[in-house]
Parts: sequence; structure tokens; C-alpha cells
Amino acid sequence: MYKENNLKKLAKIFSDMPGIGVKSAWKMVFYILKLDKEKVLEIANTLVSVSKNTKKCRICQNYTEEEICSICGDAKRNKEIICVVENPRDVISFEKTNSFFGTYHVLHGLISPIEGIGPREIAIKELIINIKKNKNIKEVILATSPTTEGEATAMYIAKLLKPLNIVVSRLAYGISIGSEIQYADNMTILKSIENRNKLI
Amino acid sequence: MYKENNLKKLAKIFSDMPGIGVKSAWKMVFYILKLDKEKVLEIANTLVSVSKNTKKCRICQNYTEEEICSICGDAKRNKEIICVVENPRDVISFEKTNSFFGTYHVLHGLISPIEGIGPREIAIKELIINIKKNKNIKEVILATSPTTEGEATAMYIAKLLKPLNIVVSRLAYGISIGSEIQYADNMTILKSIENRNKLI
Repeated sequence: MYKENNLKKLAKIFSDMPGIGVKSAWKMVFYILKLDKEKVLEIANTLVSVSKNTKKCRICQNYTEEEICSICGDAKRNKEIICVVENPRDVISFEKTNSFFGTYHVLHGLISPIEGIGPREIAIKELIINIKKNKNIKEVILATSPTTEGEATAMYIAKLLKPLNIVVSRLAYGISIGSEIQYADNMTILKSIENRNKLI
Repeated sequence: MYKENNLKKLAKIFSDMPGIGVKSAWKMVFYILKLDKEKVLEIANTLVSVSKNTKKCRICQNYTEEEICSICGDAKRNKEIICVVENPRDVISFEKTNSFFGTYHVLHGLISPIEGIGPREIAIKELIINIKKNKNIKEVILATSPTTEGEATAMYIAKLLKPLNIVVSRLAYGISIGSEIQYADNMTILKSIENRNKLI
């Protein structure tokens, strides 16, 4: 095998990243070798800076380099609605639609007894404190995935929010837009019938 | 969109890498955020060290951190056979088979008039000089891919090697092991008939 140590080490670093196989890792190594030394130094500095300076937003727990993230700090966002999501990637997904102008709360995980993750291991307490402190909040959208863990987490949070007298909603789940019904699974079809909308 | 600048910059760095889409890039960013600061520093140092210390082997032109790479410097390798490949990734592919014990020569590209890459842009000269200097070399295997550029490069090198009185061979091309003939393309089937082997 290829014995050059640092090259091998770098390939291992890349292949340890999520979704990167050994072949892609080596492609990335050779890509790095073709870059200017200055560019690689810049990449290295960005990595260190991101790792050192990124913290969680004091309000929504999303990653940020400031005390408060750019969404929570944006005066134009509607602070009356909080969309509760599993992780920062979900925030990106919602933001890409350019159609949600409320704020978020990032749980950084879902309740999962099998993996030993209880309600205290994810940012539920921070959500409740935030809502209790902020009397403007009118609605909380529970936007976790429709998986066992996602449902359980949503139900758990809904129970906690019940006494607070605010609207608690859940995303609509049904047939994906652009997909074919023949390929949808049973549970999705069942949900799409249960939650059908009247047309006329 | 997600406005945290360094995070966005790091996602861009990752998505600029070969085969990495925007979604994978963000996954990698969040992976980095979950790592210890020390581990990230180590990654950054490896990147810089690889970029600074990697050079081309004086003999075979493959990437190495020494003057001579670990394969060319290995006394157990058969120095009489040189396998000529397009790039360092191909060396890894051959090495993984654990069945070739000769040495390599890495061209770092293929002749491609469309892309403006002539014979001087790739390491052909170094191969010829190496063979002329080293009287032990008995065979050169032209192991470029069976694409237009790969064939053209192999034919070009074969012509240069003709006066040197050594065996020049090309890899066998045919139906891939484990694949089904119904899915093979016409050229592959044609080659597999042309180069058929007598059994009895």
C-alpha cells in the first residue's frame, strides 16, 4: 500500500468525515496537493478559527460566532414564532425555502432511549426557559422528523408546553411534492389520508 | 440563509473539493464543530504539512515526502518492470490488488489536445530518461485507461519506447469480472472478442 505517512494520515482524516469513503478521501488529498500552499494555509486557519470561535447562540442554540446568531439578531424576523428543529442542518433546509420568517430553536439531538439520550441531553430546558422569559412568543412549531425519535421528542415537548397557553403545531406530513404515490410507504399514505384537505 | 461567515467559508472550502456537494459540505462542517479543538488543530497541521512537504519522487514522479518514494525505495520491488499510470490514485488501485510487485511511473495526466495538454505537459520525458539511464528495465506496462486520451497517450509512449528494445505491454481490456455481459458496452464486448483466450 501507499506508505507516505502524512498523506495516509490526511486520507484517514477525510475518510473519517461523514459520507466520505476511502476513494473520495484520496481524491480530496490529491486535490489538496494541487492547491497553492497559501490556499492550504487559509483552509487550515479557517478550520482552527471555526473550531475555536463557534459557540451556541444564547437564544436558539444554533451555531454562531457571536453571542446571538444572525437569525435571532435580525430585527426583521418574527420573534412570535419558534420553529423547533433537531439540528443546525435543518435550519439551513428551512432557510433555503425562503418562506419561513420566524426564528428557530435547535435541540441538537432527539430523545432516544435506545441510544441513551434523554430529555436532559438535548436543548429542551433552554427552549422552555426562553419561552417562559419571552412573553411575545405565540406559536411553537415542532419540526422534528416523522421518525420514532422525532415523534417522541415532539410529544414530550408538547406536553411541557401545554400549561403555557401558546399555540403548539407540528409540520404537515404526507406525500412528498413531485414524488409518485406508488413509491410512497404505507405510513406516509396513511398520514396523507388522515390529514387530507377539503378542496370544494 | 445561514450568515455565520467562517462556517459558510468552511462549507465553501469543502464543497469546492471533488465530489462534495453543498449538503455533504455542511455535514462535514458540523462534524468539525463536534471535534475537540486539539483534533482540529492536528487536522490543520496535517494539511499544512502535506502541502509543504509533499514532492514528486525523483524516480517515478509519484507523491512522496522523501526524495524517493516508498515503492521505488523498496529493495523487494522488481525494478525490471515499470507500470505507467495516469495519476497517483491509479497506483493505489494497483497496490490494493497486492499482486503487482514491479514499480510505477506516474504521468500526472494524459495527452489531451482538446484540453491543451501535450506530451510535454505530462511526465513522459522523465520516464524516457529513467529507462535510458537504467539498463535493468525489461518491460514497460502502459496502464492508462482505455479512453481516447488513455489510448493516445499509450500509443505515443509506445512509439518513443520502440527503439529502446524493451518489452512494451498494455493492460488487458474486456468484460469486468463480476459484471453481466448484457450491461457491457459495445466497445468492451468487441475488445473481449478480439482478445479472446484459447481454453482447450
